Amino acid sequence: PYSNGVRTVTLIPGDGIGPEISAAVQKIFAVAKVPIEWEVVSVTPVKGPDGKFGIPQAAIDSVNKNTIGLKGPLMTPVGKGHRSLNLALRKEFNLYANVRPCRSIEGYKTLYDDVDVVTIRENTEGEYSGIEHEIVDGVVQSIKLITEGASRRVAEFAFDYARNNGRQKVTAVHKANIMRMSDGLFLRCCREAAEKNPDIRFEERYLDTVCLNMVQDPGMYDVLVMPNLYGDILSDLCAGLVGGLGLTPSGNIGTQGAIFESVHGTAPDIAGQDKANPTALLLSAVMMLRYMNLPEHAAKIERACYSTIKEGKYLTADLGGKGKCSEYTDEICQKIEAE
Amino acid sequence: PYSNGVRTVTLIPGDGIGPEISAAVQKIFAVAKVPIEWEVVSVTPVKGPDGKFGIPQAAIDSVNKNTIGLKGPLMTPVGKGHRSLNLALRKEFNLYANVRPCRSIEGYKTLYDDVDVVTIRENTEGEYSGIEHEIVDGVVQSIKLITEGASRRVAEFAFDYARNNGRQKVTAVHKANIMRMSDGLFLRCCREAAEKNPDIRFEERYLDTVCLNMVQDPGMYDVLVMPNLYGDILSDLCAGLVGGLGLTPSGNIGTQGAIFESVHGTAPDIAGQDKANPTALLLSAVMMLRYMNLPEHAAKIERACYSTIKEGKYLTADLGGKGKCSEYTDEICQKIEAE
Ligand SMILES: CC(C)[C@H](C(=O)O)[C@@H](O)C(=O)O
Ligand SMILES: CC(C)[C@H](C(=O)O)[C@@H](O)C(=O)O
Repeated sequence: PYSNGVRTVTLIPGDGIGPEISAAVQKIFAVAKVPIEWEVVSVTPVKGPDGKFGIPQAAIDSVNKNTIGLKGPLMTPVGKGHRSLNLALRKEFNLYANVRPCRSIEGYKTLYDDVDVVTIRENTEGEYSGIEHEIVDGVVQSIKLITEGASRRVAEFAFDYARNNGRQKVTAVHKANIMRMSDGLFLRCCREAAEKNPDIRFEERYLDTVCLNMVQDPGMYDVLVMPNLYGDILSDLCAGLVGGLGLTPSGNIGTQGAIFESVHGTAPDIAGQDKANPTALLLSAVMMLRYMNLPEHAAKIERACYSTIKEGKYLTADLGGKGKCSEYTDEICQKIEAE
Repeated sequence: PYSNGVRTVTLIPGDGIGPEISAAVQKIFAVAKVPIEWEVVSVTPVKGPDGKFGIPQAAIDSVNKNTIGLKGPLMTPVGKGHRSLNLALRKEFNLYANVRPCRSIEGYKTLYDDVDVVTIRENTEGEYSGIEHEIVDGVVQSIKLITEGASRRVAEFAFDYARNNGRQKVTAVHKANIMRMSDGLFLRCCREAAEKNPDIRFEERYLDTVCLNMVQDPGMYDVLVMPNLYGDILSDLCAGLVGGLGLTPSGNIGTQGAIFESVHGTAPDIAGQDKANPTALLLSAVMMLRYMNLPEHAAKIERACYSTIKEGKYLTADLGGKGKCSEYTDEICQKIEAE
């Protein structure tokens, strides 16, 4: 859906440190001469005619029109009945696949140096169905909902993703030994997708086993596909291996569009102090550029970001450095200009 | 429930390598002069009068009579409708708390050397309820069942455990931001238990956050309590940090009794070849001795086991050594005798 001219992208700066890291990304994109223009919208819930709070119509219209968005961290409004806005957006735009690549970053040392995995998480149902009941006093059930349609869709997405990104293997992660029908259905859809994609290796593993292996030898895995909650858990675990949510990008892909987002928090304690780390949002924006078929701009920005981290001069406090958000950003800009 | 004389304990050797590692434990216990005698039973399912397969009555009677059991790994029978025997035992005896300590072992090097956490897992309900339906073709729901009774029971157990084992803090692990009612109920029970136990610190954390932190800095945690599936995941993750399921013990505690078990697999490929590692079962047996109020026997065996690992001479193949199960076992026995 990308035309040759300038393309408009919705930008949701978000709360807390969101605006500063969004400004950093905008600055870097401008220097890199990325042919996009931003439409900035707020998603702070507004009261609708029915008295309920919801995402402002202008934000919904913007994403629907542009079909691509970049999003900073959002606060979950306090008070009973408010569900996470992050989730509301995923549901509103039917962003069915949550893609989170985790790669060891040269120059940023962790205990692991060979991590290169991508978690692909079903993003619309499962344990996140929101269906819960109190049967009798003190007895509650939550419903995990697995459908063939959503499972097949994300399974096929995983194989396409693997092929398009030069990856070798897809691992389906499940607990079908316990949830035989629901995870069983998910697994069956993965097996069917595997049959249709014989060029990509396929394996299936229990979630607990994957967690155990992942901390011992992450090189065992490549692309992993799984139901919603398992993806929530495993993507955070993998992010931990390479340095945390401040360094890992994320994309929510749908049939009609996609929203890329940093998944760290709003860090209200350091907001507005030029201390925030824009890396996760920047790398999410890089993912977005690849999705938009702008691979050269993506590569240029990514190189500048990684080499700034590798040099280690302007790392922000969360990475153990003393750099300001603006210094780190300027350094990336200079590297782009110097190319 | 421990009298001064010799106490009878049910031993379920299990499948695959189960018999050899059970024999190793029996040998070590004999050398350490542990005042127990074993009642060996099989739990291989037998066909009942109703045509259904179930745990043999003799095994059930033995556990009910002795109230304490030690169990090797069990194969899950193949074929539709067979549920895991491990789970059947937990349910049959209402073993509501699954306790898995994970501690870095001196001399067995992993990426981490400061791990010392205990996961306490609700063991009877949650995502393991077994209740599933196909609503219409291709739409399946699995029910996560959380009750106040079971949640309170395991929460209180966690605080008691912490106190009795000289620990400082209990962390409740949850996703009440998503499953507001079910995990919300679990969390409320933990908060109530925390109020009754002000001598133990209490905190609550999201499961995804705990996974992320655990791989970066396991020293952040101490005792963790959580619903069934989260415990399945997190206990395996933690085991991975210290060397895997071959090294970590486990206990299933109920009101009427307890079964201690190694949670690794049956390893059919090496069964009967004197290659198996008996450590997990032995350390589970050590947990059992503490539970039976035989702390000196427990400490003596534990010391001998750890120092054998530290010397590294007879490590089994899974730990990178060349030792046989029998050599490793004999070395532990010698150390006990030499004390
Ligand atoms: C903020 C929270 C609702 C969300 C989730 O649970 O999915 C987050 O953890 C994530 O991974 O994006
Ligand atoms: C064997 C399997 C059913 C079991 C579980 O899922 O609980 C195992 O993973 C465990 O942790 O004891």
